Amino acid sequence: MGKSESVKERISALRAEMEKRGLDIYIVPTSDYHESEYVGDYFKARKYLTGFTGSAGIAVVTPEEAGLWTDGRYFIQAEAQLAGSGVTLYKSGEEGVPTIEEFVEKKLKEQGGLGFDGRVMNAAQAEKYARIAEKKQVKFHVTEDLAGIVWEDRPDFPAHPVWVLPEEYAGESTADKLARVREKMEKEKADAHILTSLYDIAWLLNIRGGDIDCVPVVLSFLVITKDECRFYVSEKALTEESREYLRKERITVRPYEAVYEEIGALQAENILLCKPLTNYRIIKSLSPQAKVIDKENPTEHMKAVKNPVEIENTRKAHVKDGVAVTKFLYWLKNNIGKQKITEISASDYLEQLRREQENFLDLSFTTISAYGPNAAMMHYSATPETDAELETKGFLLVDSGGHYLEGTTDITRTVALGELSEEEKQHFTAVCRANLNLADAKFLYGCRGLNLDILARGPLWDLGIDYKCGTGHGVGHILNVHEGPNGFRWKLVMERNDSGILEEGMITTDEPGVYIEGKYGIRTENELICRKAEKNEYGQFMEFENITYVPIDLDAVLPEEMSRTERRRLNEYHKMVYDTVSPYLTEEERDWLKEYTRKI
Amino acid sequence: MGKSESVKERISALRAEMEKRGLDIYIVPTSDYHESEYVGDYFKARKYLTGFTGSAGIAVVTPEEAGLWTDGRYFIQAEAQLAGSGVTLYKSGEEGVPTIEEFVEKKLKEQGGLGFDGRVMNAAQAEKYARIAEKKQVKFHVTEDLAGIVWEDRPDFPAHPVWVLPEEYAGESTADKLARVREKMEKEKADAHILTSLYDIAWLLNIRGGDIDCVPVVLSFLVITKDECRFYVSEKALTEESREYLRKERITVRPYEAVYEEIGALQAENILLCKPLTNYRIIKSLSPQAKVIDKENPTEHMKAVKNPVEIENTRKAHVKDGVAVTKFLYWLKNNIGKQKITEISASDYLEQLRREQENFLDLSFTTISAYGPNAAMMHYSATPETDAELETKGFLLVDSGGHYLEGTTDITRTVALGELSEEEKQHFTAVCRANLNLADAKFLYGCRGLNLDILARGPLWDLGIDYKCGTGHGVGHILNVHEGPNGFRWKLVMERNDSGILEEGMITTDEPGVYIEGKYGIRTENELICRKAEKNEYGQFMEFENITYVPIDLDAVLPEEMSRTERRRLNEYHKMVYDTVSPYLTEEERDWLKEYTRKI
Repeated sequence: MGKSESVKERISALRAEMEKRGLDIYIVPTSDYHESEYVGDYFKARKYLTGFTGSAGIAVVTPEEAGLWTDGRYFIQAEAQLAGSGVTLYKSGEEGVPTIEEFVEKKLKEQGGLGFDGRVMNAAQAEKYARIAEKKQVKFHVTEDLAGIVWEDRPDFPAHPVWVLPEEYAGESTADKLARVREKMEKEKADAHILTSLYDIAWLLNIRGGDIDCVPVVLSFLVITKDECRFYVSEKALTEESREYLRKERITVRPYEAVYEEIGALQAENILLCKPLTNYRIIKSLSPQAKVIDKENPTEHMKAVKNPVEIENTRKAHVKDGVAVTKFLYWLKNNIGKQKITEISASDYLEQLRREQENFLDLSFTTISAYGPNAAMMHYSATPETDAELETKGFLLVDSGGHYLEGTTDITRTVALGELSEEEKQHFTAVCRANLNLADAKFLYGCRGLNLDILARGPLWDLGIDYKCGTGHGVGHILNVHEGPNGFRWKLVMERNDSGILEEGMITTDEPGVYIEGKYGIRTENELICRKAEKNEYGQFMEFENITYVPIDLDAVLPEEMSRTERRRLNEYHKMVYDTVSPYLTEEERDWLKEYTRKI
Repeated sequence: MGKSESVKERISALRAEMEKRGLDIYIVPTSDYHESEYVGDYFKARKYLTGFTGSAGIAVVTPEEAGLWTDGRYFIQAEAQLAGSGVTLYKSGEEGVPTIEEFVEKKLKEQGGLGFDGRVMNAAQAEKYARIAEKKQVKFHVTEDLAGIVWEDRPDFPAHPVWVLPEEYAGESTADKLARVREKMEKEKADAHILTSLYDIAWLLNIRGGDIDCVPVVLSFLVITKDECRFYVSEKALTEESREYLRKERITVRPYEAVYEEIGALQAENILLCKPLTNYRIIKSLSPQAKVIDKENPTEHMKAVKNPVEIENTRKAHVKDGVAVTKFLYWLKNNIGKQKITEISASDYLEQLRREQENFLDLSFTTISAYGPNAAMMHYSATPETDAELETKGFLLVDSGGHYLEGTTDITRTVALGELSEEEKQHFTAVCRANLNLADAKFLYGCRGLNLDILARGPLWDLGIDYKCGTGHGVGHILNVHEGPNGFRWKLVMERNDSGILEEGMITTDEPGVYIEGKYGIRTENELICRKAEKNEYGQFMEFENITYVPIDLDAVLPEEMSRTERRRLNEYHKMVYDTVSPYLTEEERDWLKEYTRKI
């Protein structure tokens, strides 16, 4: 049976379950019960139903139609993967494309019904659908996981072992972090705080796990009151070490599934939680007397501002990562055309180099290794079917990163494998200018990413080119590689929460790109620590420290397209790369790096 | 009697009136009854009371203290003018300085009273004070103009003759404009629209007047219903021509003061008005049944998007203005050191050159002609007492503009009068780069000033310098030289309404600067029309057309501090200036201009 046939069968099975319950719209988002960006296999119901493998997308099924909404990063990939499946692609944000809410409001029939699993939809979003259902006076069914019912061979619910991140790496004890959270709760006059974001729980408790690929978190909930901190987690996930640690920290351990019942019995009047990050069933489980204070989780901002230990360690992680990626570039540039290399074999080789580094834990996300036109798909992931063999021409784009005990990295380099067109070089040079332009910004405290974004986007806008994504995102510390509230983006996107004021200690990626459909993709990505520059009568100035130490391929740079200042920026960056990384290389690699970090 | 003595006496007189009414706080803003930025002499009660002449400032008088709040543009000037008067300067926005609301809330005594003239405070602001008074349960007295009561020799209420702007200059008939407003009213489900903004009324009715210095508006109110348009205006202001025109356009003329009574009797359920632009007494006069739809006035956006006739004419106005200012620069550069020139005599000479241009109407604001340290005061205005004599060194900053029948101009040039320090040249060069950097921006439709501001501010931030004001403002068409909703500013300032999306046809100034207290001030200001560039798969790109045609003083430019791109921008700008202006100059002026627009 072909892939598109099984998609049709699965959607038919779902429709049968919908019909039994009188539902004419069922929504299957890409979520776990924690609004995690990436989800474990157990939660990939939307992928199971539609065949689309991208990390972002929502399926909406009606008796007549199955639609898949995704964003600009995935248009090309979704078009390819949905071909023949009968699933309609809705390109979110494009002119004339309805939002899901608009679609639902239009399609929902009188006497009909709207449904989804309340655990995989956040409360802020779910309440919008509840209002639509109320307005249309139709059934609103959110207590059953219909996709789960039709899912044959569903993977097991994850429960990877929990491990403790020692304070010498975390930089702050759980007791101190909890005290800061309780201070914030007091300010908000909250008796209790329900925390469901896995990144925030892991940060707060100084624990890590492995319940999401490349995101070392623990599936759990946390309920904090003045006197108690209850940790709802699968018993199976706890090791002796972590159990002992939690006891010492006076964290009460409770079964994962008990959270819904127990928060209903919670003796608290005012409950602080962040609706857009909390699943709808949690909200519906609260006692009717409870008043919700819907605010950003206090931990959101706390974990984004890295402490001095985290910063110092992150630099160390980047040195190791820089050594691995530089060695990879040396190998790639010297072996292309001499041996068979494919997208996957290249990324495997890079992974191996990372694994050789001390304290390496895992990749921080699935490596994107994309050759030629594949790289035009911003979040392409090579599969054995698509795995392209590299030739001695064009670009290989590699976006990758690692978790080390010291911190997390995220880097993209686009590598010239041989002959390039003038256009390719021009675009590569513009991307390089864009990247270094932003990294070199100096600005007054109070600026947000939306004030700075044009520094990166400007060189491309000058060419009449744009990239359909943000310029950069916050980076979690051995957590999700994407985190808020910092980021670079010119348009305010409320639900992304990435336009916060840039604070000292925040780490943000800087990754402009050019994506020419059917031809090539170019991206250069470094990470920047925000730090204080001088303070004077005009205010507190801020600047960035570039902590990614890997050369930008000079074979693709047109020096004559750069201003003197831009060439100076590149030369200074390359000098830093050489000084930082060369002590860890072989003599041949070092000689090569000397040449590839030469002054232009 | 000295100036500061008379200030003390006036405040004493006000306190006596306050005491009679049991008020312990009385607020005197700088407003007319229309929230105009600049106000006629009749309305300058705050200046009368405190002696501070700046355009922005609010006096707050208590039995013990008289305070004056003003913003960064005026700190230096206010300090000088308030010295010895006993009035305390509160620097708005500085760390630790209370806002007026905070001050009022703190100082307001139980059993006391808070007062101001309800006509000189907008409804949005006044309602905040009403809430404070309610909370404190004190008297709230807003029906009397106490400052007016104590004001001896108050100027007459203005009633300058109304004149009609012919459609060949306005580009759109009043009937068409009114139809567009009524369309918007229908969309908002409003039966009536009360318009009190003088700029919007003048734009909508295609009339102009002279009730505010340099702002050719007519003191009036407008009430628009489906069938009627009532124009509340002083009978004395109407000429035979304007009366005839209004009759033809079917505008009902009513006495200015009748507005309060008549809107109380208005047969309308839903009234569209903009609270932050409407005086409190208007709101309090509405029938209790009326529901206010508090939205931006529809005319706000309409008048900001200039129509093709206005744009074509504005270019013509700028050519004439460019000729006048270029002739001025020629005269200044060639006569400095040879004859006595002062700040005022220089600005008088420039005004004379403008008046010689065809269809010149008036200055568009009081010229700022500031030599040396005076220019560090951003909105310095020379008086006979301060009038500095120009020497053959340092900078003269001249910020000026004119109203022509074709449109309005606003330009600043900073002129090297002789010897300059290295620092002066460096700062001048940075300001020049900042100005041209922004003018050369290309950006996707949807950008706001806050996305682009760093293009201008960046070169100064790089030097650890900032200017404490926006980078630019919208320009009215033979109206107020400052208008919204367009502008350049990195921080969102809600009440300024200058962070709107940049639309094709909007005109915005571009005026970065450096202000070194006690030393000098540098500003270079051009005007930019926003226009469409290419539209492609990435979206609609936008760009600016530079419509100010006056050289930037090359005597103060350090070419080596500019990138090749920046030098190209300056050279291209100067070529355009020469090509545009030279046909209107004498041979000597033309030769001079050739030299002063040379390639660097």
